[in-house]
Amino acid sequence: MKKLINDVSNVLTESLDGFAAAHADIVSLGAEHKFIRRKVLKPGKVALLSGGGSGHEPLHAGFVGHGMLDAACPGQVFTSPTPDQMIAAADAVDTGAGLLFIVKNYEGDVMNFDMAREMSGREIETVITDDDVAVENSLYTTGRRGVAGTLVVEKVTGAAAEQGASLAALKALGDKVNQATRSMGVALTSCTVPAAGKPTFDIGAEDMEMGVGIHGEPGRRRVALRQANEIAEEMVAAIAGDLGRKGDALLFVNGFGGTPAMELYLMYNAAAALLARHGIRAVRALVGNYVTSLDMAGCSITVTLLDDEIVKGWDAPIHTPALRWGV
Amino acid sequence: MKKLINDVSNVLTESLDGFAAAHADIVSLGAEHKFIRRKVLKPGKVALLSGGGSGHEPLHAGFVGHGMLDAACPGQVFTSPTPDQMIAAADAVDTGAGLLFIVKNYEGDVMNFDMAREMSGREIETVITDDDVAVENSLYTTGRRGVAGTLVVEKVTGAAAEQGASLAALKALGDKVNQATRSMGVALTSCTVPAAGKPTFDIGAEDMEMGVGIHGEPGRRRVALRQANEIAEEMVAAIAGDLGRKGDALLFVNGFGGTPAMELYLMYNAAAALLARHGIRAVRALVGNYVTSLDMAGCSITVTLLDDEIVKGWDAPIHTPALRWGV
Repeated sequence: MKKLINDVSNVLTESLDGFAAAHADIVSLGAEHKFIRRKVLKPGKVALLSGGGSGHEPLHAGFVGHGMLDAACPGQVFTSPTPDQMIAAADAVDTGAGLLFIVKNYEGDVMNFDMAREMSGREIETVITDDDVAVENSLYTTGRRGVAGTLVVEKVTGAAAEQGASLAALKALGDKVNQATRSMGVALTSCTVPAAGKPTFDIGAEDMEMGVGIHGEPGRRRVALRQANEIAEEMVAAIAGDLGRKGDALLFVNGFGGTPAMELYLMYNAAAALLARHGIRAVRALVGNYVTSLDMAGCSITVTLLDDEIVKGWDAPIHTPALRWGV
Repeated sequence: MKKLINDVSNVLTESLDGFAAAHADIVSLGAEHKFIRRKVLKPGKVALLSGGGSGHEPLHAGFVGHGMLDAACPGQVFTSPTPDQMIAAADAVDTGAGLLFIVKNYEGDVMNFDMAREMSGREIETVITDDDVAVENSLYTTGRRGVAGTLVVEKVTGAAAEQGASLAALKALGDKVNQATRSMGVALTSCTVPAAGKPTFDIGAEDMEMGVGIHGEPGRRRVALRQANEIAEEMVAAIAGDLGRKGDALLFVNGFGGTPAMELYLMYNAAAALLARHGIRAVRALVGNYVTSLDMAGCSITVTLLDDEIVKGWDAPIHTPALRWGV
């Protein structure tokens, strides 16, 4: 295992210390590294709280700040955060208007966020994301997995919260964005979890995993690597078919961590052209490493169909460590 | 070779098409893929033009926009762009106030930008960056290599140009920022150039290349992989020793493409603490993949000592595909 680390048991805390120091103008670190919170809260605003296993950076801590999340709870790598983390974060950022939990659909995450909701005694609604069309049930989920589309849910609800939307309205909006969003991924290599010290899965030198999950978990099938256009075609067909609607969309090509920007933009080019054939026009774009799987090579394609409310939320000003515009 | 590509001969053009489509609000693509230019020019402003071999994305095209570059010329992967690209770009973005060329110190780049300057007949000054302390002369350079510090030169001069600085003032400022900036890199793996189809260099499963260049070219020495703190210590000592001054600084931890954000922030944490021992205080931060070497694992550390003029330029509003704040 080749990684820029000291002791495997301190990777997360040392990384969080660096993150909090580098972005001290936007975020601060909770006691015992339990959460990253927005430095300056906005009283009366519904607080948005997310989290999940680490290893997907910048998701979620990189999205804490004006116009997106108020707090993020980082679990150990690919491991759900614990309810006490979520309760501590909720205590830190709830200014009286209640909390919206945004949770990727993995059994551990859903269970722990649900436990935190019950134990906290606060007013909390939960949006569960399940945008991955690759598989119906999977290694860690009942139902579909929540993957890169979670970013879109967090961005759009974050913008509405900033504008004073109520908790009930945010819950409805988050569910709507999730339902307008589909994703699918492909992996060319495995990722390597520091504590494991070896690749999560074996994959042949000529193979790819179509429909891979963001922890390197199996997708639809293992097949020989094909050209980018063919890969994009299968992913876009699955996404467009499942959406079953036409219209203007956000096209988000997400790198899993080990794939260069040059290839991600090439995939964007392919996907945009293919979506047009399905009657979906990419009018907003996001390309880069945002919902990663450590050092895995590959990418996912996410499409969110836009209506006036969603595009307004997407375009709204944001100032976080990983996403900034209009502020 | 595992890459998300179609035909190796079209990787660059397909990627540029995707880039231009994804960021059509900020940039446009020159004829024959010769350059990426700022979509809306600012008449009377000195135009900033950079470029170099591709494979370092988002450098340079990702930095075209308000507050940074007016145009970027992408060569083939790790190959200098040609003078006709630079002349076409200069013709497209010069609004009459002249042009500043910002060129990384590689023989091919310096020669071609110089030829373009002579042939264009326009008023042009050139800033050559050479921030890499690892080696004095190298595979492709006489003198030191220009690496990630180039981003800082482009950002700070771009801000001053936006404020109306003259060509002579920008030349002086660019040279000053370059002289206040030092970098050093480390590679844990090689990169793979698409057209070559195999890793640029061989490296043992337990080894790292200290002082590596951004094309995977040799650095100071090949040694066994050590802990992050020890790696950071050697890099910071080389940088601080060469700077020979104390003060407030921008600390920029740059990923080469294959290293996860978690490790980059861990390196930031280590480097900030080590710099403090040398009397250098990190008061500004940038962490991420900005000056990459395709899929190479590893990172570089860049330190720029700040004065009032440099920090003002760094903080100034910017709106480009890869860097945005304050707009």
